[in-house]
Amino acid sequence: MANMREIAKEAGVGISTVSRYINNTGYVSERSRAKIERVIEKSHYKPNELARAIFTRNSKIIGLLVPNISNPYFNELALIIEEYASEQGFSIFLCNTNDDFEKESNYINVLQGHRVAGIITVRSQCKNEYAAYDIPVVSFESYISEKIITVATDNFTGGSLAFNHLYECGCRNLVHVAGPLFADAISERTRGFIESAREKNITVDLIQFETDFQRKMLEANIKTLEDIEKYDGIFVFNDIAAATVIRYFQQKNVRIPEEVQVIGFDNSYIGEFLFPSLTTIEQSVQEVGRTLVEALLKLIKGEAVDQKKIIIKPNLVKRDSTRVSK
Amino acid sequence: MANMREIAKEAGVGISTVSRYINNTGYVSERSRAKIERVIEKSHYKPNELARAIFTRNSKIIGLLVPNISNPYFNELALIIEEYASEQGFSIFLCNTNDDFEKESNYINVLQGHRVAGIITVRSQCKNEYAAYDIPVVSFESYISEKIITVATDNFTGGSLAFNHLYECGCRNLVHVAGPLFADAISERTRGFIESAREKNITVDLIQFETDFQRKMLEANIKTLEDIEKYDGIFVFNDIAAATVIRYFQQKNVRIPEEVQVIGFDNSYIGEFLFPSLTTIEQSVQEVGRTLVEALLKLIKGEAVDQKKIIIKPNLVKRDSTRVSK
Repeated sequence: MANMREIAKEAGVGISTVSRYINNTGYVSERSRAKIERVIEKSHYKPNELARAIFTRNSKIIGLLVPNISNPYFNELALIIEEYASEQGFSIFLCNTNDDFEKESNYINVLQGHRVAGIITVRSQCKNEYAAYDIPVVSFESYISEKIITVATDNFTGGSLAFNHLYECGCRNLVHVAGPLFADAISERTRGFIESAREKNITVDLIQFETDFQRKMLEANIKTLEDIEKYDGIFVFNDIAAATVIRYFQQKNVRIPEEVQVIGFDNSYIGEFLFPSLTTIEQSVQEVGRTLVEALLKLIKGEAVDQKKIIIKPNLVKRDSTRVSK
Repeated sequence: MANMREIAKEAGVGISTVSRYINNTGYVSERSRAKIERVIEKSHYKPNELARAIFTRNSKIIGLLVPNISNPYFNELALIIEEYASEQGFSIFLCNTNDDFEKESNYINVLQGHRVAGIITVRSQCKNEYAAYDIPVVSFESYISEKIITVATDNFTGGSLAFNHLYECGCRNLVHVAGPLFADAISERTRGFIESAREKNITVDLIQFETDFQRKMLEANIKTLEDIEKYDGIFVFNDIAAATVIRYFQQKNVRIPEEVQVIGFDNSYIGEFLFPSLTTIEQSVQEVGRTLVEALLKLIKGEAVDQKKIIIKPNLVKRDSTRVSK
């Protein structure tokens, strides 16, 4: 069964009738309806989840929208969400939005069209697009609306922890490598860092990465770091960007932590492979993943979720890229 | 509209009738059919992609099955496939199979149920599961059947390139860190390496990693590497496993390439962040991604694809973890 034209021909009805039937956009007589269905029945049409999903709204699929699966934090998060969801009998359709509003918006439409049971959205840039559908949604990082549950790390405190650690390590000449401005979670890290520095009368210079990690931008990003060896402490907005910073220092033969100290954010696996291994602010990927899945499954089952905002506590993870001064 | 029970009640028919209607598993009178449909019509049912997909088989979704998105090669590949597919108006449902036969098999079912336009499957362990459906399928790495197009790097030659490079670098005392045995693509690398070594009368010791990268296994895998500093050259089956090897040497303060030389496989982005940066055998992720999408789109459009097996040529990418001897 290839298309409406063929259905129409075989059923002996007009194409517009088939279209009204399929799209449910107007009156179709019982007689035409029966003819169309008999043709569909004779075709390869088999009982399937899709039909069940349309009619019963009982699909066992969760749509997961992530901004960038090349960021190790998001790929670990996707794996953990997959693991928890799968224990509960759900499969995941993972959609990479590339931090692109249009892509995200399209995927919301597509997932809704496929009648997924619910959506977990990460660093979303959409608002009204979610309000248009009555599918359960849980958001990580971005606030979408009063109705939608937000799970977020206390990023302000995370930025503050990063400053306090560098300060304790003796750094007084600081630069912050900041991330994309559209992401509240990232700018909160910046704010926490700078405000804590201000309390100690320390000013912070800023460098901006326009996007999350993209391999093709690695060399261009390294260029924006020119001369950062003049600072003694660097806070980078996430671990994969900190990997770029450490790569810069390797090319320049600058020693970490002897000459410059570096701290990241996330505690994603990349930090353990860098040399030296990366001190970072952890937002527990296990806790975030479990919290997102638990909240969404409650909504899917029609249970109440008391908190509309669930806060994850950040922690300092000390490794070799910083050194507490005696 | 929550479930069949409610549809049955409101339509004044039995649940088994609704079930036969929805699952298309038996006779439903025209009268009952019309009643059921009127109830569905009155409900929230709206024209949607899903209905169109069922009836016209014209969905603009490609299902992408990858074994492990925490492997940087596969997450780059997914991004590139997403980019090419999106230029052609297709969205991607990415499914992580975790190298698990049951998960892959379930996802094939789910994607078929959702009437995706086609499937790209990576390092597949399924065979008959694909034959059961008439959806276009293109496979990367694994041979599935005569009907299904396979795209694969010439992994044997890749393993051979890795040996020849280490040999040229003066290494004579070799160990190979091999990957999961179920993956032909990986065991071909092993075979190419060992056969080339045999031609030079060099024997190769073996260490086996049971799975692709999993963060929770990092420390356990590092333990299996105990004493590998006694070798002077190491070929590791992929880059993310080579990152584990390099982490081992960092903890032991063994210098690369002065004391031991290391070569990986893939040319994924992780290699540029390691210290020293990783020499590797490239299987161009751009070329693989583009080839997979082009072949699948031809099948979706009903065009012929001449070659049933498309071979990608591997290349040596020389970085700092090896050193050609003078």
